[in-house]
Amino acid sequence: MVSIGSTESTQLHDASVISFASDNYSGVHPEVLAALTSANGGHQVAYGEDVYTARLREEMSALFGKDVDVFPVFNGTGANVVALQSLLPRWGAVVCAATAHINMDENGAPERVGGMKLLSVPTVNGKLTPELIDKEAWGFGDEHRAQPLAVSITQTTELGTCYTPEEVRAICDHAHSLGMKVHMDGARLANAAAHLGVPVREFTSDAGVDVLSFGGTKNGIIFGEAIVALNPEAADGLIYLRKLNMQLSSKMRFISAQLLALLSDDLWLKSAGHANAMAAKLRAAVELLPQVQCTQATESNGVFAILPEGVAERLREKFRFYDWDEAAREVRWMCSFDTSEADVEAFVAALQAELS
Amino acid sequence: MVSIGSTESTQLHDASVISFASDNYSGVHPEVLAALTSANGGHQVAYGEDVYTARLREEMSALFGKDVDVFPVFNGTGANVVALQSLLPRWGAVVCAATAHINMDENGAPERVGGMKLLSVPTVNGKLTPELIDKEAWGFGDEHRAQPLAVSITQTTELGTCYTPEEVRAICDHAHSLGMKVHMDGARLANAAAHLGVPVREFTSDAGVDVLSFGGTKNGIIFGEAIVALNPEAADGLIYLRKLNMQLSSKMRFISAQLLALLSDDLWLKSAGHANAMAAKLRAAVELLPQVQCTQATESNGVFAILPEGVAERLREKFRFYDWDEAAREVRWMCSFDTSEADVEAFVAALQAELS
Amino acid sequence: MVSIGSTESTQLHDASVISFASDNYSGVHPEVLAALTSANGGHQVAYGEDVYTARLREEMSALFGKDVDVFPVFNGTGANVVALQSLLPRWGAVVCAATAHINMDENGAPERVGGMKLLSVPTVNGKLTPELIDKEAWGFGDEHRAQPLAVSITQTTELGTCYTPEEVRAICDHAHSLGMKVHMDGARLANAAAHLGVPVREFTSDAGVDVLSFGGTKNGIIFGEAIVALNPEAADGLIYLRKLNMQLSSKMRFISAQLLALLSDDLWLKSAGHANAMAAKLRAAVELLPQVQCTQATESNGVFAILPEGVAERLREKFRFYDWDEAAREVRWMCSFDTSEADVEAFVAALQAELS
Amino acid sequence: MVSIGSTESTQLHDASVISFASDNYSGVHPEVLAALTSANGGHQVAYGEDVYTARLREEMSALFGKDVDVFPVFNGTGANVVALQSLLPRWGAVVCAATAHINMDENGAPERVGGMKLLSVPTVNGKLTPELIDKEAWGFGDEHRAQPLAVSITQTTELGTCYTPEEVRAICDHAHSLGMKVHMDGARLANAAAHLGVPVREFTSDAGVDVLSFGGTKNGIIFGEAIVALNPEAADGLIYLRKLNMQLSSKMRFISAQLLALLSDDLWLKSAGHANAMAAKLRAAVELLPQVQCTQATESNGVFAILPEGVAERLREKFRFYDWDEAAREVRWMCSFDTSEADVEAFVAALQAELS
Repeated sequence: MVSIGSTESTQLHDASVISFASDNYSGVHPEVLAALTSANGGHQVAYGEDVYTARLREEMSALFGKDVDVFPVFNGTGANVVALQSLLPRWGAVVCAATAHINMDENGAPERVGGMKLLSVPTVNGKLTPELIDKEAWGFGDEHRAQPLAVSITQTTELGTCYTPEEVRAICDHAHSLGMKVHMDGARLANAAAHLGVPVREFTSDAGVDVLSFGGTKNGIIFGEAIVALNPEAADGLIYLRKLNMQLSSKMRFISAQLLALLSDDLWLKSAGHANAMAAKLRAAVELLPQVQCTQATESNGVFAILPEGVAERLREKFRFYDWDEAAREVRWMCSFDTSEADVEAFVAALQAELS
Repeated sequence: MVSIGSTESTQLHDASVISFASDNYSGVHPEVLAALTSANGGHQVAYGEDVYTARLREEMSALFGKDVDVFPVFNGTGANVVALQSLLPRWGAVVCAATAHINMDENGAPERVGGMKLLSVPTVNGKLTPELIDKEAWGFGDEHRAQPLAVSITQTTELGTCYTPEEVRAICDHAHSLGMKVHMDGARLANAAAHLGVPVREFTSDAGVDVLSFGGTKNGIIFGEAIVALNPEAADGLIYLRKLNMQLSSKMRFISAQLLALLSDDLWLKSAGHANAMAAKLRAAVELLPQVQCTQATESNGVFAILPEGVAERLREKFRFYDWDEAAREVRWMCSFDTSEADVEAFVAALQAELS
Repeated sequence: MVSIGSTESTQLHDASVISFASDNYSGVHPEVLAALTSANGGHQVAYGEDVYTARLREEMSALFGKDVDVFPVFNGTGANVVALQSLLPRWGAVVCAATAHINMDENGAPERVGGMKLLSVPTVNGKLTPELIDKEAWGFGDEHRAQPLAVSITQTTELGTCYTPEEVRAICDHAHSLGMKVHMDGARLANAAAHLGVPVREFTSDAGVDVLSFGGTKNGIIFGEAIVALNPEAADGLIYLRKLNMQLSSKMRFISAQLLALLSDDLWLKSAGHANAMAAKLRAAVELLPQVQCTQATESNGVFAILPEGVAERLREKFRFYDWDEAAREVRWMCSFDTSEADVEAFVAALQAELS
Repeated sequence: MVSIGSTESTQLHDASVISFASDNYSGVHPEVLAALTSANGGHQVAYGEDVYTARLREEMSALFGKDVDVFPVFNGTGANVVALQSLLPRWGAVVCAATAHINMDENGAPERVGGMKLLSVPTVNGKLTPELIDKEAWGFGDEHRAQPLAVSITQTTELGTCYTPEEVRAICDHAHSLGMKVHMDGARLANAAAHLGVPVREFTSDAGVDVLSFGGTKNGIIFGEAIVALNPEAADGLIYLRKLNMQLSSKMRFISAQLLALLSDDLWLKSAGHANAMAAKLRAAVELLPQVQCTQATESNGVFAILPEGVAERLREKFRFYDWDEAAREVRWMCSFDTSEADVEAFVAALQAELS
């Protein structure tokens, strides 16, 4: 075995490099690392019977203004699939936006592992509406049709847009009137809360969402999300579903401690608000560039834009980022908790250089 | 939201309490925490294209003496299910010991998520043999029978016993001669390596194991295992299977950095060797107690014993541990990297007190 | 395309050949063929809204002494998997005899398609008891364990034995006391009813069975079984589960008409009683042969016996039948509705010739 | 048990009633019934080792001009799911028209049971093209995306339109060039063959289709379809997949005999051609009615039309048929092998009466 040497040399990467590729490219907030250290030492009951997970439930209940059930899991795909399974019988289907992460980015996990059908609807901005839901919410009682018994919305959406509290409430009211339940994929919930400037409960528990995937990883922790049963009566068997879907962490105290660190002193909102502000700064700068066309409202930490031919390729030699729609030359630029004003300025300068 | 206060007060538990319940109850080794800090900062490509994961592949290839493919995942159940899926067609079945973790402790994940049938065989000590495998390895070509195309063995077993390199080789040779592939659940692989005192490759890659679940969590890291394709030709589609089974960590650098910390300076063997030594110390002490009957060889970090009636209940008021076979009054005592000699002595003293 | 000529020449097989291999080798009772003709002509609503299926529900309700729900399906494996799914949440497991058809002969369909875990128990005669059920009915509430929420028993068993009404009731009472539901695989239900000589309801609906797979194919019809929800409250979503499990026949009138033909004038009992009588005749003759050792009670249409070495192979040159346990030289001889006394006599004569 | 009386009274329905609802509402062709009788009597090996199934393979090989593998199954959904599974790894996805039966009418069986993701594409006439396939055939090698490794087309489509041989070939060539395989759902293959007036092989085996679901039920048999592996190398494990997907008929001789009856003397083409002719006659009559707007080309046995408000409801008091798009007042009228000219004339007269 090759030795990898002393602790100092264990840093294998250049920690000064920043990208605009994804909030997943960033690392961990120092306060989260500190929380991991605090949670260490001694023995704690595994699989969620630890004091950190108990405390997390209390904090989440306070946050959402009611007694909620909280199930920490490993990642967002796991949170989504387990949450949706808990809302659906074996014959259930999920109405979602065509751009939804569950539909586009999870290699069919909802279908293959979750055993559900996704009934996806094209949207202009990633947001469902009662009218759009109705395009697939039909055929109730028809055994030939996968029964549309849940709606899944993403807050913020994959296009960086935000549902207002009123929009969420309208969707929940409509879904519930049809006998459907509502799941919210909140991988970037914090960005929505920071953008909307209202308590998170206004567009989740108070608006009628039944089960929430509460995101952590994209907001400065190592790993970990939490399924939050805002309406525990709507969700069946989460304790078993988490385990059988391979999302049960043995040393759960470390997920819970990280999420507690996020909730402590509103770190989650501060980090997300910072990422949003950096995206807004980038957006403002880009809008001054006539060759660049922004394609979506910037309501969180991402900017979507169409670039002249060849610009993206050259710009990528300096900063990593992704195509969103390659055929349309549309790209996505993401900011995260550790994106600095200088990073944005350097990026804009590089973009300007390529454009001129 | 209730504030949870300053960093100092974020430690919610008594870090001096130790149990003999599970190696999952322990926390994280300080060198692993240091590695997380080193891996932090700046941006790294998500989903495994980072330098830590690349380095991990190199280290694992060195360890196993050949080019191997390495797929970090979240937990042991995930590693096992993904690994077994990669070895099997949709009509495959897995011969395993009845006591195997995949059979007893994963809430049917291999069947439900993996879509495989387990053909379990009773054993006396948790270990399969070619003869025991033959009890279920039949019916090849019969469409009515789930086709037994893989064997899964656990090293060390759930009963704390170890396969010798020769035993593993005999199983692999036999399985391969029948057209079956071999998976090893190595959640406690390090304990086996420490116990056997031979290079790990002698009872894995060199012995013919096709795919290995390389354990980390039970050996002092926060979370994380690695699927190691020792025979990459035998394993199909691991890159896709990991994602669709919801085991793809976005910030993978942090799993890989932890596993690298384990491999650095043989920390994995030192930690496991210490846990084994503590179990041996406990075993030696217990053997002096005529009222206690040990039921399995102590070849790793666990001791299995039958206690007089009522003793377990009273002892649990001081130390947490699990029943193994409640009807037989058989209990399991597990040591971990952070179990001290004083912990063992205190435990033995308490046991003696209850027995007298 | 090769023409296959006129109707007369469409019979490609020798209709005088009989085997002792399986009741599946036999054809169709003439009255069933007549029923198909009667049900033909004109249009009937597809997928079960036809008058034959409505009538079948009435007949089954009369037979079982209460309002039952009836779902005709294609085959026994389909009936079993759909029935069990209707009784179980996604985290459920089924306690069954190790010899159960669902465990041995369905290529893992219950696990792979049904998403359930089977907790199988060895038995001496294919029959479960409350005590045997308890070997696997534990761990309720433990998320790591597939939850044992249903029992499946086979009547008659795969070994040709029959549960008495009292035995079924004891199992149902025990299961229900544990919160478990009871499924009966009645692929050979008619043979049990004929053997026991009591109304079928005494060992099904009256005894507490929740859902029954009512067999047809092995008793002289072309294809078709019916899932009968004896306790409709216990079974959830059968209408959807049948469709999504690919067991919904479009021209369902033809399954229902066949099952109605079976129920008409007790044809099902007459056919099964005849098959049983032929097995009894065979058993009686075999018992006179000291070289042959019968291994199971003959309580339905099968005889199990151990033969001297080489006899089975030679006997098979004249009559087809299956090994049951090749290593033990145990074979299975099955009679069906169309087995004649002369067939049995010829078979016994051939056996005697090989033995002498 | 209520007696259902003598054979004469076993006909519970009015065999003179015809509908325009579905070809599934019709019964069985007399020659098919005769074939069932011929195949009856004596014993035949179960599960497909019978002489009828062997002959069917020969006939199908002759029909498709090459050695093909043939796997009779129960129904169309079963044929489609088993066929597609045989073409795909666990991470595969299927590009299909949004209107495809697998997407709209199978309650998610392909996703839930087959474990595949469907990537559906809107079309104007139910037909895919290479360009339409490209809308979803991308992301090869991206682990986040369900891998589009198969195309499924329906011939004739759910909208009654037909692919020409050239169109099928273009799709196959394109799919194969991308490493994708091609499945054809031929539930109404006979109607396409009759419409196109060319040998079926020209738009199946010769055009590059890998696996075909060969329909029988909608064309005058009781039940039964056949999976035909036109390119056996492309399809893996069909023998096992059929069983584990609960599509293995024990008395398979009766499916095969029915399909043989269809192939004999071109009965399948005659029956389908008659149904097509009746649809053409209906179409011609309807085109003379200015208040009715036909919405699709009539290239098989169905006519799609938009009716003035209220007409469908009143017409249904005399003839049963289905809405296709309720919001658009679009209805579907299907003809079958037993639809007579008089039936069409009566229907048109009733329609005219309602319109005037």
